[in-house]
Amino acid sequence: MTRQISALGWVPDSARGYVKDLRVRWALEEAGLSYSSVLIEFDRPLGDPYRAWQPFGQVPAYRDEEVELFESGAILLYLAARSPVLAPEDPAGRARMASWVFAATTSLQPQADVHNLLGRVLTEEGRQQVRQRLERRLAGLSDWLGDKDYLEGRFTVGDLMMATVLRELTEDGFLGRFPNLAAYHARCEARPAFGRALAAQLADFRDVS
Amino acid sequence: MTRQISALGWVPDSARGYVKDLRVRWALEEAGLSYSSVLIEFDRPLGDPYRAWQPFGQVPAYRDEEVELFESGAILLYLAARSPVLAPEDPAGRARMASWVFAATTSLQPQADVHNLLGRVLTEEGRQQVRQRLERRLAGLSDWLGDKDYLEGRFTVGDLMMATVLRELTEDGFLGRFPNLAAYHARCEARPAFGRALAAQLADFRDVS
Repeated sequence: MTRQISALGWVPDSARGYVKDLRVRWALEEAGLSYSSVLIEFDRPLGDPYRAWQPFGQVPAYRDEEVELFESGAILLYLAARSPVLAPEDPAGRARMASWVFAATTSLQPQADVHNLLGRVLTEEGRQQVRQRLERRLAGLSDWLGDKDYLEGRFTVGDLMMATVLRELTEDGFLGRFPNLAAYHARCEARPAFGRALAAQLADFRDVS
Repeated sequence: MTRQISALGWVPDSARGYVKDLRVRWALEEAGLSYSSVLIEFDRPLGDPYRAWQPFGQVPAYRDEEVELFESGAILLYLAARSPVLAPEDPAGRARMASWVFAATTSLQPQADVHNLLGRVLTEEGRQQVRQRLERRLAGLSDWLGDKDYLEGRFTVGDLMMATVLRELTEDGFLGRFPNLAAYHARCEARPAFGRALAAQLADFRDVS
Protein backbone atom coordinates (compact mmCIF):
# COMPACT_ATOMS: atom_id res chain seq x y z
CA MET A 1 0.00 0.00 0.00
CA THR A 2 1.36 3.43 -1.00
CA ARG A 3 0.59 6.07 1.63
CA GLN A 4 1.19 9.80 1.33
CA ILE A 5 0.79 12.59 3.87
CA SER A 6 1.09 16.32 3.28
CA ALA A 7 3.48 18.31 5.45
CA LEU A 8 5.09 21.76 5.43
CA GLY A 9 8.44 22.38 3.76
CA TRP A 10 9.31 25.24 6.09
CA VAL A 11 8.06 26.79 9.35
CA PRO A 12 9.78 29.09 11.88
CA ASP A 13 11.95 27.36 14.48
CA SER A 14 9.32 27.86 17.21
CA ALA A 15 6.77 25.79 15.27
CA ARG A 16 9.10 22.91 14.38
CA GLY A 17 7.99 19.73 16.10
CA TYR A 18 4.47 21.12 16.59
CA VAL A 19 2.92 20.99 13.10
CA LYS A 20 -0.06 18.65 13.09
CA ASP A 21 1.28 16.13 10.56
CA LEU A 22 3.25 14.96 13.64
CA ARG A 23 0.06 13.21 14.81
CA VAL A 24 -0.31 11.22 11.62
CA ARG A 25 3.39 10.37 11.40
CA TRP A 26 3.22 9.13 15.03
CA ALA A 27 0.22 6.89 14.33
CA LEU A 28 1.86 5.48 11.21
CA GLU A 29 5.06 4.78 13.18
CA GLU A 30 3.10 3.07 15.99
CA ALA A 31 1.34 0.88 13.44
CA GLY A 32 4.52 0.15 11.49
CA LEU A 33 3.00 1.49 8.25
CA SER A 34 5.33 3.07 5.69
CA TYR A 35 4.55 6.43 4.10
CA SER A 36 6.07 9.30 2.18
CA SER A 37 5.55 13.03 2.72
CA VAL A 38 4.44 15.56 0.11
CA LEU A 39 5.83 18.96 1.11
CA ILE A 40 3.80 22.10 0.50
CA GLU A 41 4.03 25.74 1.54
CA PHE A 42 1.88 27.14 4.37
CA ASP A 43 -1.77 28.21 3.87
CA ARG A 44 -2.23 27.68 0.13
CA PRO A 45 -4.50 30.35 -1.44
CA LEU A 46 -7.98 29.75 -2.87
CA GLY A 47 -7.76 28.07 -6.24
CA ASP A 48 -4.44 26.35 -5.50
CA PRO A 49 -4.48 22.71 -6.70
CA TYR A 50 -3.64 21.51 -3.16
CA ARG A 51 -7.08 22.72 -2.04
CA ALA A 52 -8.64 19.78 -3.91
CA TRP A 53 -6.86 17.54 -1.37
CA GLN A 54 -7.24 19.86 1.68
CA PRO A 55 -10.05 22.43 1.24
CA PHE A 56 -8.56 24.86 3.81
CA GLY A 57 -5.02 24.68 2.43
CA GLN A 58 -3.64 23.25 5.66
CA VAL A 59 -1.71 20.12 6.67
CA PRO A 60 -1.99 17.23 7.16
CA ALA A 61 -3.93 15.47 4.43
CA TYR A 62 -3.60 11.75 3.70
CA ARG A 63 -4.14 9.41 0.79
CA ASP A 64 -3.57 5.81 -0.09
CA GLU A 65 -4.94 3.59 -2.84
CA GLU A 66 -8.32 3.38 -1.11
CA VAL A 67 -9.11 6.79 0.41
CA GLU A 68 -8.23 10.47 0.33
CA LEU A 69 -8.95 12.43 3.47
CA PHE A 70 -7.95 15.40 5.63
CA GLU A 71 -8.05 16.58 9.27
CA SER A 72 -5.64 14.82 11.62
CA GLY A 73 -8.51 13.42 13.72
CA ALA A 74 -10.18 11.76 10.74
CA ILE A 75 -6.86 10.33 9.58
CA LEU A 76 -6.13 8.90 13.05
CA LEU A 77 -9.53 7.20 13.19
CA TYR A 78 -9.02 5.77 9.69
CA LEU A 79 -5.63 4.34 10.66
CA ALA A 80 -6.98 3.13 14.02
CA ALA A 81 -9.48 0.91 12.22
CA ARG A 82 -6.53 -0.74 10.45
CA SER A 83 -4.13 -1.46 13.33
CA PRO A 84 -4.71 -3.19 16.69
CA VAL A 85 -1.78 -1.18 18.08
CA LEU A 86 -3.82 2.02 17.69
CA ALA A 87 -7.18 0.93 19.10
CA PRO A 88 -9.04 -2.00 20.66
CA GLU A 89 -11.06 -4.11 18.25
CA ASP A 90 -14.37 -4.25 20.12
CA PRO A 91 -17.08 -1.65 19.34
CA ALA A 92 -17.26 -0.39 22.93
CA GLY A 93 -13.51 0.18 23.10
CA ARG A 94 -13.44 1.85 19.70
CA ALA A 95 -16.22 4.18 20.74
CA ARG A 96 -14.22 5.28 23.80
CA MET A 97 -11.14 5.81 21.64
CA ALA A 98 -13.11 8.04 19.24
CA SER A 99 -14.55 10.01 22.18
CA TRP A 100 -11.04 10.88 23.34
CA VAL A 101 -9.84 11.87 19.87
CA PHE A 102 -12.71 14.37 19.72
CA ALA A 103 -12.28 15.45 23.35
CA ALA A 104 -8.64 16.31 22.69
CA THR A 105 -9.33 18.29 19.51
CA THR A 106 -12.63 19.96 20.39
CA SER A 107 -12.82 20.27 24.20
CA LEU A 108 -9.15 20.90 24.98
CA GLN A 109 -7.27 22.07 21.86
CA PRO A 110 -9.40 25.21 21.27
CA GLN A 111 -8.89 26.33 24.88
CA ALA A 112 -5.15 25.72 24.55
CA ASP A 113 -5.03 27.55 21.21
CA VAL A 114 -6.83 30.59 22.54
CA HIS A 115 -4.51 30.63 25.53
CA ASN A 116 -1.36 30.21 23.43
CA LEU A 117 -2.21 32.13 20.27
CA LEU A 118 -4.56 34.88 21.37
CA GLY A 119 -3.11 35.76 24.79
CA ARG A 120 -1.54 38.89 23.30
CA VAL A 121 -4.82 40.25 21.92
CA LEU A 122 -7.05 39.50 24.93
CA THR A 123 -7.99 42.03 27.57
CA GLU A 124 -6.97 41.19 31.16
CA GLU A 125 -10.54 39.98 31.83
CA GLY A 126 -10.30 37.81 28.72
CA ARG A 127 -6.99 36.29 29.77
CA GLN A 128 -8.42 35.31 33.15
CA GLN A 129 -11.53 33.84 31.56
CA VAL A 130 -9.47 31.78 29.09
CA ARG A 131 -7.08 30.57 31.81
CA GLN A 132 -9.97 29.47 34.02
CA ARG A 133 -11.69 27.54 31.23
CA LEU A 134 -8.47 25.77 30.32
CA GLU A 135 -7.80 24.90 33.96
CA ARG A 136 -11.31 23.48 34.37
CA ARG A 137 -10.81 21.21 31.37
CA LEU A 138 -7.40 20.06 32.59
CA ALA A 139 -8.87 19.39 36.04
CA GLY A 140 -11.57 17.21 34.44
CA LEU A 141 -8.97 15.33 32.44
CA SER A 142 -6.69 14.87 35.46
CA ASP A 143 -9.60 13.61 37.54
CA TRP A 144 -10.58 11.11 34.85
CA LEU A 145 -7.02 9.84 34.32
CA GLY A 146 -6.35 9.28 38.04
CA ASP A 147 -3.50 6.80 38.33
CA LYS A 148 -4.15 5.02 35.04
CA ASP A 149 -1.31 4.82 32.50
CA TYR A 150 -3.61 5.79 29.61
CA LEU A 151 -7.10 7.30 29.36
CA GLU A 152 -8.78 3.94 28.83
CA GLY A 153 -6.07 1.78 30.42
CA ARG A 154 -4.28 0.84 27.19
CA PHE A 155 -2.68 3.18 24.61
CA THR A 156 -4.94 4.31 21.74
CA VAL A 157 -4.95 7.14 19.20
CA GLY A 158 -7.04 8.99 21.80
CA ASP A 159 -3.90 9.20 23.96
CA LEU A 160 -1.79 10.05 20.94
CA MET A 161 -4.06 12.99 20.09
CA MET A 162 -4.31 14.13 23.71
CA ALA A 163 -0.52 14.03 24.14
CA THR A 164 -0.01 16.33 21.13
CA VAL A 165 -2.45 18.83 22.66
CA LEU A 166 -0.79 18.66 26.11
CA ARG A 167 2.57 19.09 24.36
CA GLU A 168 1.62 22.69 23.59
CA LEU A 169 1.00 23.42 27.28
CA THR A 170 4.26 22.16 28.76
CA GLU A 171 6.31 25.33 28.49
CA ASP A 172 4.36 27.82 30.55
CA GLY A 173 3.95 25.62 33.63
CA PHE A 174 0.27 24.86 33.14
CA LEU A 175 0.81 21.13 33.08
CA GLY A 176 3.02 21.15 36.17
CA ARG A 177 -0.05 21.92 38.28
CA PHE A 178 -1.47 18.50 37.33
CA PRO A 179 1.33 16.01 38.13
CA ASN A 180 -0.54 12.99 36.78
CA LEU A 181 -1.10 14.78 33.44
CA ALA A 182 2.55 15.80 33.26
CA ALA A 183 3.58 12.16 33.88
CA TYR A 184 1.02 10.93 31.34
CA HIS A 185 2.29 13.35 28.72
CA ALA A 186 5.89 12.23 29.35
CA ARG A 187 4.80 8.57 29.19
CA CYS A 188 3.23 9.10 25.76
CA GLU A 189 6.21 10.97 24.35
CA ALA A 190 8.60 8.30 25.66
CA ARG A 191 7.14 5.84 23.17
CA PRO A 192 9.77 5.10 20.49
CA ALA A 193 7.26 5.77 17.69
CA PHE A 194 6.87 9.36 18.90
CA GLY A 195 10.61 9.92 18.66
CA ARG A 196 10.73 8.57 15.12
CA ALA A 197 7.75 10.72 14.06
CA LEU A 198 9.29 13.87 15.54
CA ALA A 199 12.62 13.20 13.82
CA ALA A 200 10.82 12.64 10.51
CA GLN A 201 8.95 15.95 10.75
CA LEU A 202 12.12 17.87 11.64
CA ALA A 203 14.08 16.23 8.82
CA ASP A 204 11.57 17.48 6.25
CA PHE A 205 12.05 21.21 6.99
CA ARG A 206 14.36 23.25 4.81
CA ASP A 207 16.87 25.24 6.81
CA VAL A 208 16.13 28.61 5.25
CA SER A 209 12.91 30.21 4.07
CA MET B 1 -32.16 -1.13 21.41
CA THR B 2 -32.48 1.37 24.29
CA ARG B 3 -30.65 4.62 23.53
CA GLN B 4 -30.08 7.49 25.96
CA ILE B 5 -28.56 10.91 25.42
CA SER B 6 -27.73 13.52 28.04
CA ALA B 7 -29.14 17.03 27.64
CA LEU B 8 -29.57 20.14 29.76
CA GLY B 9 -32.70 20.73 31.83
CA TRP B 10 -32.40 24.50 31.63
CA VAL B 11 -30.40 27.13 29.72
CA PRO B 12 -31.04 30.86 29.14
CA ASP B 13 -33.39 31.69 26.25
CA SER B 14 -30.48 32.80 24.04
CA ALA B 15 -28.91 29.31 24.18
CA ARG B 16 -32.10 27.36 23.50
CA GLY B 17 -31.87 25.56 20.18
CA TYR B 18 -28.05 25.79 20.22
CA VAL B 19 -27.01 23.22 22.85
CA LYS B 20 -24.92 20.49 21.23
CA ASP B 21 -27.22 17.56 21.99
CA LEU B 22 -29.15 19.03 19.01
CA ARG B 23 -26.57 17.37 16.74
CA VAL B 24 -27.17 13.93 18.19
CA ARG B 25 -30.96 14.32 18.25
CA TRP B 26 -30.81 15.37 14.57
CA ALA B 27 -28.75 12.32 13.57
CA LEU B 28 -31.07 9.99 15.49
CA GLU B 29 -34.10 11.60 13.80
CA GLU B 30 -32.50 11.26 10.34
CA ALA B 31 -31.79 7.59 11.01
CA GLY B 32 -35.22 6.94 12.52
CA LEU B 33 -33.69 5.66 15.78
CA SER B 34 -35.66 6.14 19.00
CA TYR B 35 -34.02 7.56 22.13
CA SER B 36 -34.77 9.13 25.47
CA SER B 37 -33.03 12.11 27.08
CA VAL B 38 -31.44 12.21 30.54
CA LEU B 39 -31.58 15.80 31.80
CA ILE B 40 -28.73 17.20 33.86
CA GLU B 41 -27.70 20.64 35.09
CA PHE B 42 -24.94 22.64 33.36
CA ASP B 43 -21.21 22.01 34.01
CA ARG B 44 -21.34 19.35 36.74
CA PRO B 45 -18.50 19.75 39.28
CA LEU B 46 -15.55 17.39 39.75
CA GLY B 47 -16.65 14.26 41.59
CA ASP B 48 -20.23 14.43 40.35
CA PRO B 49 -21.47 10.97 39.26
CA TYR B 50 -22.27 12.33 35.77
CA ARG B 51 -18.53 12.80 35.20
CA ALA B 52 -18.19 9.01 34.91
CA TRP B 53 -20.29 9.30 31.73
CA GLN B 54 -18.92 12.66 30.52
CA PRO B 55 -15.48 13.50 32.04
CA PHE B 56 -15.86 17.27 31.48
CA GLY B 57 -19.40 17.46 32.87
CA GLN B 58 -20.84 18.64 29.54
CA VAL B 59 -23.54 17.44 27.14
CA PRO B 60 -24.14 15.42 25.07
CA ALA B 61 -23.14 11.94 26.11
CA TYR B 62 -24.69 8.80 24.64
CA ARG B 63 -25.23 5.20 25.64
CA ASP B 64 -26.99 2.13 24.36
CA GLU B 65 -26.67 -1.55 25.23
CA GLU B 66 -23.38 -1.80 23.36
CA VAL B 67 -21.41 1.41 23.95
CA GLU B 68 -21.06 4.45 26.20
CA LEU B 69 -19.46 7.51 24.67
CA PHE B 70 -19.24 11.29 24.68
CA GLU B 71 -18.41 14.23 22.37
CA SER B 72 -21.01 14.97 19.69
CA GLY B 73 -18.53 14.20 16.88
CA ALA B 74 -17.76 10.73 18.21
CA ILE B 75 -21.47 10.02 18.68
CA LEU B 76 -22.25 11.13 15.11
CA LEU B 77 -19.56 8.84 13.69
CA TYR B 78 -20.84 5.94 15.79
CA LEU B 79 -24.41 6.46 14.53
CA ALA B 80 -23.17 7.02 10.96
CA ALA B 81 -21.70 3.51 10.93
CA ARG B 82 -25.18 2.19 11.73
CA SER B 83 -27.39 4.03 9.22
CA PRO B 84 -27.04 4.43 5.44
CA VAL B 85 -29.03 7.68 5.74
CA LEU B 86 -26.13 9.25 7.65
CA ALA B 87 -23.17 8.15 5.54
CA PRO B 88 -22.18 6.22 2.43
CA GLU B 89 -21.18 2.61 3.02
CA ASP B 90 -17.90 2.50 1.06
CA PRO B 91 -14.60 3.19 2.89
CA ALA B 92 -13.67 6.12 0.64
CA GLY B 93 -17.02 7.86 1.22
CA ARG B 94 -16.90 7.22 4.96
CA ALA B 95 -13.42 8.71 5.13
CA ARG B 96 -14.67 11.91 3.45
CA MET B 97 -17.63 12.06 5.83
CA ALA B 98 -15.32 11.78 8.85
CA SER B 99 -13.03 14.48 7.42
CA TRP B 100 -15.95 16.91 7.31
CA VAL B 101 -17.12 16.08 10.84
CA PHE B 102 -13.64 16.99 12.09
CA ALA B 103 -13.34 20.01 9.78
CA ALA B 104 -16.57 21.43 11.17
CA THR B 105 -15.62 20.92 14.82
CA THR B 106 -11.89 21.65 14.72
CA SER B 107 -11.23 23.97 11.75
CA LEU B 108 -14.41 26.06 11.85
CA GLN B 109 -16.14 25.77 15.26
CA PRO B 110 -13.21 27.15 17.30
CA GLN B 111 -12.97 30.23 15.04
CA ALA B 112 -16.73 30.75 15.34
CA ASP B 113 -16.61 30.28 19.13
CA VAL B 114 -13.81 32.79 19.58
CA HIS B 115 -15.69 35.24 17.40
CA ASN B 116 -19.00 34.72 19.20
CA LEU B 117 -17.93 34.11 22.78
CA LEU B 118 -14.73 36.09 23.20
CA GLY B 119 -15.49 39.16 21.07
CA ARG B 120 -16.14 41.19 24.21
CA VAL B 121 -12.75 40.44 25.77
CA LEU B 122 -10.58 40.86 22.66
CA THR B 123 -8.65 43.98 21.84
CA GLU B 124 -9.49 45.69 18.52
CA GLU B 125 -6.43 44.03 16.94
CA GLY B 126 -7.66 40.69 18.26
CA ARG B 127 -11.16 41.17 16.88
CA GLN B 128 -9.77 41.89 13.41
CA GLN B 129 -7.45 38.89 13.56
CA VAL B 130 -10.28 36.57 14.63
CA ARG B 131 -12.64 37.94 11.96
CA GLN B 132 -10.04 37.45 9.23
CA ARG B 133 -9.29 33.86 10.26
CA LEU B 134 -12.99 33.01 10.32
CA GLU B 135 -13.52 34.64 6.92
CA ARG B 136 -10.61 32.68 5.42
CA ARG B 137 -12.10 29.41 6.64
CA LEU B 138 -15.56 30.28 5.33
CA ALA B 139 -14.04 31.27 1.98
CA GLY B 140 -12.34 27.87 1.78
CA LEU B 141 -15.59 26.11 2.62
CA SER B 142 -17.58 28.19 0.12
CA ASP B 143 -15.02 27.50 -2.59
CA TRP B 144 -15.15 23.75 -1.91
CA LEU B 145 -18.95 23.61 -1.84
CA GLY B 146 -19.40 25.52 -5.11
CA ASP B 147 -22.83 24.69 -6.49
CA LYS B 148 -23.12 21.26 -4.86
CA ASP B 149 -26.11 20.56 -2.61
CA TYR B 150 -23.94 18.94 0.06
CA LEU B 151 -20.19 18.84 0.76
CA GLU B 152 -19.72 15.45 -0.87
CA GLY B 153 -22.79 15.56 -3.12
CA ARG B 154 -25.11 13.59 -0.82
CA PHE B 155 -26.13 14.40 2.76
CA THR B 156 -23.94 12.92 5.52
CA VAL B 157 -23.30 13.65 9.20
CA GLY B 158 -20.48 15.86 7.90
CA ASP B 159 -23.15 18.23 6.58
CA LEU B 160 -25.18 17.84 9.76
CA MET B 161 -22.21 18.89 11.88
CA MET B 162 -21.25 21.72 9.53
CA ALA B 163 -24.81 23.08 9.52
CA THR B 164 -24.87 23.29 13.33
CA VAL B 165 -21.63 25.29 13.24
CA LEU B 166 -22.89 27.63 10.50
CA ARG B 167 -26.10 28.03 12.52
CA GLU B 168 -24.16 30.03 15.10
CA LEU B 169 -22.98 32.48 12.43
CA THR B 170 -26.30 33.39 10.84
CA GLU B 171 -27.26 36.29 13.07
CA ASP B 172 -24.44 38.73 12.61
CA GLY B 173 -24.43 38.67 8.80
CA PHE B 174 -21.24 36.66 8.40
CA LEU B 175 -22.93 33.96 6.38
CA GLY B 176 -24.70 36.46 4.09
CA ARG B 177 -21.35 37.25 2.48
CA PHE B 178 -21.19 33.67 1.18
CA PRO B 179 -24.53 33.10 -0.60
CA ASN B 180 -23.85 29.44 -1.40
CA LEU B 181 -23.08 28.74 2.28
CA ALA B 182 -26.24 30.56 3.39
CA ALA B 183 -28.28 28.48 0.94
CA TYR B 184 -26.50 25.29 2.03
CA HIS B 185 -27.21 26.04 5.68
CA ALA B 186 -30.90 26.68 4.89
CA ARG B 187 -31.04 23.46 2.82
CA CYS B 188 -29.73 21.42 5.77
CA GLU B 189 -32.10 23.00 8.29
CA ALA B 190 -35.07 22.46 5.96
CA ARG B 191 -34.72 18.71 6.45
CA PRO B 192 -37.70 17.46 8.49
CA ALA B 193 -35.42 15.60 10.91
CA PHE B 194 -33.79 18.90 11.91
CA GLY B 195 -37.17 20.37 12.81
CA ARG B 196 -38.05 17.36 14.94
CA ALA B 197 -34.69 17.47 16.72
CA LEU B 198 -35.00 21.19 17.46
CA ALA B 199 -38.53 20.75 18.82
CA ALA B 200 -37.35 17.88 21.04
CA GLN B 201 -34.51 19.94 22.52
CA LEU B 202 -36.79 22.91 23.20
CA ALA B 203 -39.46 20.68 24.78
CA ASP B 204 -36.95 19.39 27.33
CA PHE B 205 -36.17 22.79 28.88
CA ARG B 206 -37.92 23.82 32.07
CA ASP B 207 -39.49 27.26 31.82
CA VAL B 208 -37.87 28.73 34.93
CA SER B 209 -34.44 28.25 36.50
